[in-house]
Amino acid sequence: MSDNPVSDNPVSNKDISRRRLLGTVGGAGATGLVLGAAGGAAAHAAAAGDAPTALTTLGSTGIGFHGTHQAGIATPLQACGHLIAFDLAPGAGRKEAAALMRRWSTLAGDLMAGRSAGDGDTGVALDAGPSSLTVTFGFGHTFFDRTGLTAQRPPELDPLPAFSSDQLDAKRSDGDLWVQIGADDALVAFHALRAIQKAAGDAARVRWQMNGFNRSPGATGKPMTARNLMGQIDGTGNPKPSEPDFDKRIFVPPGTKYEWLAGGSYAVVRRIRMLLDDWEKLSLKKQEQVIGRRKSDGAPLTGGSELTEPALDETGPDGKLVIPDNAHARISAPEQNGGAAMLRRPFSFHDGIAADGTPDAGLLFICWQADPLRGFVPVQRKLDRGDALSAFIRHEASGLFAVPGGPKKGEYVGQRLLES
Amino acid sequence: MSDNPVSDNPVSNKDISRRRLLGTVGGAGATGLVLGAAGGAAAHAAAAGDAPTALTTLGSTGIGFHGTHQAGIATPLQACGHLIAFDLAPGAGRKEAAALMRRWSTLAGDLMAGRSAGDGDTGVALDAGPSSLTVTFGFGHTFFDRTGLTAQRPPELDPLPAFSSDQLDAKRSDGDLWVQIGADDALVAFHALRAIQKAAGDAARVRWQMNGFNRSPGATGKPMTARNLMGQIDGTGNPKPSEPDFDKRIFVPPGTKYEWLAGGSYAVVRRIRMLLDDWEKLSLKKQEQVIGRRKSDGAPLTGGSELTEPALDETGPDGKLVIPDNAHARISAPEQNGGAAMLRRPFSFHDGIAADGTPDAGLLFICWQADPLRGFVPVQRKLDRGDALSAFIRHEASGLFAVPGGPKKGEYVGQRLLES
Repeated sequence: MSDNPVSDNPVSNKDISRRRLLGTVGGAGATGLVLGAAGGAAAHAAAAGDAPTALTTLGSTGIGFHGTHQAGIATPLQACGHLIAFDLAPGAGRKEAAALMRRWSTLAGDLMAGRSAGDGDTGVALDAGPSSLTVTFGFGHTFFDRTGLTAQRPPELDPLPAFSSDQLDAKRSDGDLWVQIGADDALVAFHALRAIQKAAGDAARVRWQMNGFNRSPGATGKPMTARNLMGQIDGTGNPKPSEPDFDKRIFVPPGTKYEWLAGGSYAVVRRIRMLLDDWEKLSLKKQEQVIGRRKSDGAPLTGGSELTEPALDETGPDGKLVIPDNAHARISAPEQNGGAAMLRRPFSFHDGIAADGTPDAGLLFICWQADPLRGFVPVQRKLDRGDALSAFIRHEASGLFAVPGGPKKGEYVGQRLLES
Repeated sequence: MSDNPVSDNPVSNKDISRRRLLGTVGGAGATGLVLGAAGGAAAHAAAAGDAPTALTTLGSTGIGFHGTHQAGIATPLQACGHLIAFDLAPGAGRKEAAALMRRWSTLAGDLMAGRSAGDGDTGVALDAGPSSLTVTFGFGHTFFDRTGLTAQRPPELDPLPAFSSDQLDAKRSDGDLWVQIGADDALVAFHALRAIQKAAGDAARVRWQMNGFNRSPGATGKPMTARNLMGQIDGTGNPKPSEPDFDKRIFVPPGTKYEWLAGGSYAVVRRIRMLLDDWEKLSLKKQEQVIGRRKSDGAPLTGGSELTEPALDETGPDGKLVIPDNAHARISAPEQNGGAAMLRRPFSFHDGIAADGTPDAGLLFICWQADPLRGFVPVQRKLDRGDALSAFIRHEASGLFAVPGGPKKGEYVGQRLLES
């Protein structure tokens, strides 16, 4: 899917030391994978599966920056993540935004290929391969006002409706620009975060920043089954890149009024605090009733395995629904929401212990869809009203971003918007 | 070195599901390593080296809980870490402390072997192997007052001297009890943290808690060369477990007045904030002058490679010392400090962006030694006075803990103290 795999990129002098490492790794018999932004999914899953693979695949895997879609959407979950939102600086407009996106795109392409950030590189990623680094860029609602591009702002980017259970912190929500960084190595991810921040220069100021994580590749023998910090398998109903309607559900097609967004997507970002002290007081049975699935393997309470369809109408010997009326799995089921589908691709977060003594931990929920009004919004509206899980979570921050398609070679992310 | 490798432990019903996973992994050809607390170092380093190794080694590696020394000291750096300090609850004394250490020891042994935490397990580590989990316990100065054991308190545990550059936050310093958790998987580490916290029950209350990380195994082809968030290779001068005087420098020998501490060690814990915005403004050359080593490979500025001895007296064409007078590498050199040696085994930390807009990031410095007055203290005293690096760091929290030797089978950590 990528029209410019990493290996096509010119190698400049500045990256000799890291290139040499990668060369050595390859020479020792390891597979130095170079994956397209979308094509990465299958190869990565295979690497995490049964077949013995060189450990250094973790470091040497590079994800392509160019392609139809930006990387970091269909890319498999990474072990480490940073989210950072910026507002354009006072006085900065379309011209400065374009220059910034050009700088950031060059930088992201270099870092994702395992190259240096150039002059002033902090050195934090030295010795390491790209480690599946991805850098993904999005534009918030306010970006279009700031750049005089409101005519190019799709209505899908209108602010999300308020939900009754929201307890949102405006300072940690929204933003003109949003950057998602993911990698399988924490230092590689941190290195990219600092480089992106520094490259913002005078054009943009940090609005908020959050850190997250997922399971390390290889910690389980299964291919990256995600669990969240409640212990639940999370992501079972996700559309799969191999499914025929995946692209249609996740990516904006060409031919809309907003052609600059062709191949792009919308990201809904929510900082969802888990009230773990309360949750962990529930018995296993109670927890499973809240979710509607078995904790051990994610199978519906009506039986089978993780991927078995829940028998939503099935009743038990007591005449009651086996999967309760307000179970999370029932309320969030696509068939209960007009087939709404979104690709949930979260990171867990844990920021220590809050002032009230409870863990400041939960989910950096990120979901991707071609239209938030047919993905996140209808599902969240139902969950907001009737979900048994809602007593144990709290939405603390929120953002909605339009994420342009992937850049062609020589192009920067958002160029089709900013030079329209 | 471990007298009770994991595989000797009885397997109980509660851990069947995770055992089954490990069995499958082993059956697929991966090496399910089971390592002693001290013996882990060599095997782990080999796994991170050149030879192709099954990726799932990351998950299936278990570190033994029992042995001469506690795990988590000579164990290679892990990708994820949590530090948590507790104070005994009002009214709790020696009896409650002994019961707590017994509970915690049973739990740590189970978790490190990849078993469940028992009733009420949160499920967060389900599917994953032990992923090199270690849980290490220490006692602070105040622990001995609280338990009526002041006669058993070694003078080495007296509060550290104040250093002029300290800016310590008492709320994030010290504590009756200290637990260090490390693992190569973030969910396994978080699972252990929550289990330890829950098992404290009414006996102890959390005083402070910090999170950290290191490079993921396999991100570099080299064996786990550590870099910190300044981009420096960190730990070059560390004593190696293979060196003949390693044990003598790091572990308390038998035959002292404090026999309960035989095989134990002292941990100095400092939250060292890095002033990264200032540091990153320096040119590479300036940074290298501050450190006295090349950033790229850690070699002394007088040449060679990382392990070459610095030529401290060498002058350049301008007649000036090549490694400046106040360079960190000069001032911290063991030969400048009466041969003081400590084993630095840190985690980096990154808690997002502080209120003043600077990154709240740096090093959870943890160093291990047989005697802090001959390890950390003399070195820090010199650094405090003349280190060029001190303008770019800030010690924000501090703790000193006596870490008992490893438990024999059937024993709990600290039993020789608490039942003395």
